[in-house]
Amino acid sequence: MIASQLATDLAATVRSIPDYPKPGIIFRDITTLLGNPRAFRRAVDELVQPWAGSKIDKVAGIEARGFILGGAVAHQASAGFIPIRKKGKLPHATVRIAYSLEYGLDEMEMHEDAVTAGERVVLVDDLIATGGTAVAATKLLKQCGAEVVAAVFVIDLPDLGGADKLRALGTPVHTLMSFAGH
Amino acid sequence: MIASQLATDLAATVRSIPDYPKPGIIFRDITTLLGNPRAFRRAVDELVQPWAGSKIDKVAGIEARGFILGGAVAHQASAGFIPIRKKGKLPHATVRIAYSLEYGLDEMEMHEDAVTAGERVVLVDDLIATGGTAVAATKLLKQCGAEVVAAVFVIDLPDLGGADKLRALGTPVHTLMSFAGH
Repeated sequence: MIASQLATDLAATVRSIPDYPKPGIIFRDITTLLGNPRAFRRAVDELVQPWAGSKIDKVAGIEARGFILGGAVAHQASAGFIPIRKKGKLPHATVRIAYSLEYGLDEMEMHEDAVTAGERVVLVDDLIATGGTAVAATKLLKQCGAEVVAAVFVIDLPDLGGADKLRALGTPVHTLMSFAGH
Repeated sequence: MIASQLATDLAATVRSIPDYPKPGIIFRDITTLLGNPRAFRRAVDELVQPWAGSKIDKVAGIEARGFILGGAVAHQASAGFIPIRKKGKLPHATVRIAYSLEYGLDEMEMHEDAVTAGERVVLVDDLIATGGTAVAATKLLKQCGAEVVAAVFVIDLPDLGGADKLRALGTPVHTLMSFAGH
C-alpha cells in the first residue's frame, strides 16, 4: 500500500458501479482512472516504484485490462512486454495453464519463447480479487524459468484473499488501494 | 513511414508466421517486437513523434493488442487512455458501432463519457489491414465529439487499403513499417 493521501486521491478516480455484473457486487471500474492523465501517470509510476531499483527484463500483462497498465509499466521500466492471453489468441507455440472461474475452468496461454530461464519479470494487472488468474499467470511464468520479482495491481480486494495466495507462492505483491468486500 | 534503416531494424523484430490463421495468410506477430525492450521503446517513441508537438488529451486503444501499445503511448504522452472494446465488456453506459468482419458484422463499444466534445485524441493499434476496426473506432470517437488528431499503427498492410480509408475520413495516419500482401 502507498501513502494514504495518494491512495485516497487515486481511489477517487475509480468509478464504483453497484450491482454489476450481478446484484450485490460493486464493480470497480478503472477506466475513469485511466482516462485521467494525472491519475494514469501517477498509478503507473507507483506500480513501478517498489521495484524500480532492481533490473527487470520483462513485464507480463494479463488480457485485457492488464495490457493497458502493463504496456505503460513496461515502457516506463524500459522492459519488454509479455502478453498472457485467453486461449487460442496467440499465433506461435504456447504454454498453457488452467485456472478456476466462478463456474468451471478456463485456460490462459503465453508464447513458449516469451521468457528465457532466469529472466526477471514483473506481473501487472488492474485488480486482484480471488487471485485465480494472477496465481495461474505466476505459475506459467515460473514454469518457463522466469523469476517473478513482483506482482503489482492498482486495486486489491483483500477480503477475497488473492494477494495472500500470491505471497504464499513467494511473490511480493504491491497494490495502490484496497476496497472492502467484493 | 519512418527512416528506412529504423523501419528495417524494427521490422526484423516482427515474427512472420506463414499460413496463420489460415492457408495463404502470413500473420505478422508483434509479440516478438513487444518482448524486445529496445524495439518496444523505440516503437512507442516513433508512434508518439509525429504528433508530439501538439497537445493531446487522450489516447484510444483498440482491444486487445492496441491496449498494450496504447497504454504505453498514453503514458509517454502524459495523456489519458480510452479503451475501445468488443461489445459487452464495458461496465458503464456505452456508445456502440458496427463494423464488418470477413463474415458478418460485429460491434465495438466505448464509454459514452470517455471523451468530451473538443478533446484531442490519438488512435493506436498494432496493425492496419482493411481498416474495419480503425475506421469504426474513428467514427465512434468523432460521434462523441472528439477530434481524431492522428491514427498510428506499428504495421501497415497497404495492399488492403485501410490507411487510405482512414485518410479519406480526414485522419492523418502514421505507420512504422509496411508489408506487402496480406
